[in-house]
Amino acid sequence: MVRAPDVHICEVAPRDGLQNLDVFVPTEAKCALIDAIVAAGVGEIDAGSFVPPKVVPQFADVDAVMAHALTHEATTIGALVPNFKGAERAMAAGVKSIYFVISASESHNQANVRRTIEEQLEGFRAVRAAIDARPAAARPCLMGAVATAFGCSIHGKITEAAVCHLARSFAEAGADEIGLADTVGYGTPGLIKQIVQAVQREVGPQMPLRLHLHDTLGTGFANAVAGLEVDIRRFDAAVSGLGGCPFAPGARGNIVTEDLAFMLERMGFSTGIDLDRLMQTREILARHIQAKHLTGHLHEAGIPKALRKAA
Amino acid sequence: MVRAPDVHICEVAPRDGLQNLDVFVPTEAKCALIDAIVAAGVGEIDAGSFVPPKVVPQFADVDAVMAHALTHEATTIGALVPNFKGAERAMAAGVKSIYFVISASESHNQANVRRTIEEQLEGFRAVRAAIDARPAAARPCLMGAVATAFGCSIHGKITEAAVCHLARSFAEAGADEIGLADTVGYGTPGLIKQIVQAVQREVGPQMPLRLHLHDTLGTGFANAVAGLEVDIRRFDAAVSGLGGCPFAPGARGNIVTEDLAFMLERMGFSTGIDLDRLMQTREILARHIQAKHLTGHLHEAGIPKALRKAA
Repeated sequence: MVRAPDVHICEVAPRDGLQNLDVFVPTEAKCALIDAIVAAGVGEIDAGSFVPPKVVPQFADVDAVMAHALTHEATTIGALVPNFKGAERAMAAGVKSIYFVISASESHNQANVRRTIEEQLEGFRAVRAAIDARPAAARPCLMGAVATAFGCSIHGKITEAAVCHLARSFAEAGADEIGLADTVGYGTPGLIKQIVQAVQREVGPQMPLRLHLHDTLGTGFANAVAGLEVDIRRFDAAVSGLGGCPFAPGARGNIVTEDLAFMLERMGFSTGIDLDRLMQTREILARHIQAKHLTGHLHEAGIPKALRKAA
Repeated sequence: MVRAPDVHICEVAPRDGLQNLDVFVPTEAKCALIDAIVAAGVGEIDAGSFVPPKVVPQFADVDAVMAHALTHEATTIGALVPNFKGAERAMAAGVKSIYFVISASESHNQANVRRTIEEQLEGFRAVRAAIDARPAAARPCLMGAVATAFGCSIHGKITEAAVCHLARSFAEAGADEIGLADTVGYGTPGLIKQIVQAVQREVGPQMPLRLHLHDTLGTGFANAVAGLEVDIRRFDAAVSGLGGCPFAPGARGNIVTEDLAFMLERMGFSTGIDLDRLMQTREILARHIQAKHLTGHLHEAGIPKALRKAA
């Protein structure tokens, strides 16, 4: 029996990391990236978006990428969907996790999916029903993902009440997990704790919660630690700090998976991740993606010899 | 009456930020940098090192730079010194704060100043006596700075006992303040809290403590927040994230002043710093320093309009 990691990390580079690039990353490179992430021991991968190619051309090949990703049967392969149609495609592909996104900001929701929050919730309920209509073995997990939960570059401040309302609506509609996303990276450690704790009170201790953090203003890791301090043990992160939302001006990359895993291991949490292997993703990315998009402290500094024992 | 800031930030770019560069920054540029930092409202500046120019050529002009810096009478102008001779020069120059550095790592101390910790402490005591021999109005503050307090790239792990011993020795020898430096950036939030609290118990609640953090591995801000949570209200930081120790292999830049100030203000702490003005330091630096050395999230992202009210 392999012990479950103390902290569960979902690698989002193949989806969030690529969606904002102005180059199309070839299908084989996407598959190689996913293979490398699997080889490093990451337990869950957000492998793509089921969105119309007209909206995000990067995912025109999502069916091929998913078919390949799903050959890794021991890894939870998930996909982001913006609506019922996307969820239908994801289910047809056989993904194991569906991340259904609704923004706590009415303005960002309109920009992102051109629907009201209430209209989106209708779609979420329909996805739940469609999942439940499938045989038990073919039912993916359904996450309700709250975008702009810690601020919005269009709308500004997002109230605790708005986030709690959406989280409760997700829970009542049968979400298996709730994600809280700092889509634009405006969170501070105090705000992270405040919103997480409010949502914990709102949906109860049985509901798994996940943090998705962007490091626009340098607070990404401080925010992750704030999450740890209020019992979050599930995080999204992206290798080489890739990421950004095409419909949220100013958003920068996700917190860096390799830096996060290294910090967590040094803090005494297990992640199940082989850092040296994870860092091999850089080479795959560097062949297709401009250097300016590839960040990360560990890649710059190298894993210090003096800390090898601790990692 | 101007209210004192909740968090005191000492800007160290003119010293720590320049010491590791392979270009000599012209005296006028150093002075312009200091002027810009003063104009931004920063209360204390580490303006240079009184070290032999053979050891660190960057500070060959330290007397001229200090003479200029000290025309800013409302700002605490300080200097780093590695030994008694350096402190004599600093006092002759009229600096208001002397940062006397001893490493908690015997190996780093040898590499840094080629003396044992005990020999260094003798030097510190001599400086204390020399300061006390001066007229009261001409006595600078004396900080005992503990280098490699959270790990050492040469020595590896540094024990809590080693840091506490040095902190207590500083306190017993009459330090006015104690600095704890993560010289190589190996700290994690848990370690920061552990060491700070141990030192607080060791030297008592009356002794001002300051954190000096490098962001080698991405944990700089998480470490700063950890410091805040154990009542640290004094931080070193460097504009554009400049910094590194010439005698500590692998060390990267200090935590970024403008990013730190922005985070603190958004967390409800006052810093007394005018961010727009502080960010003008970038232009001065960019004229003389290679772009690869100039980091910082706020410079990359810009101050988001949606957060202007909060800053």
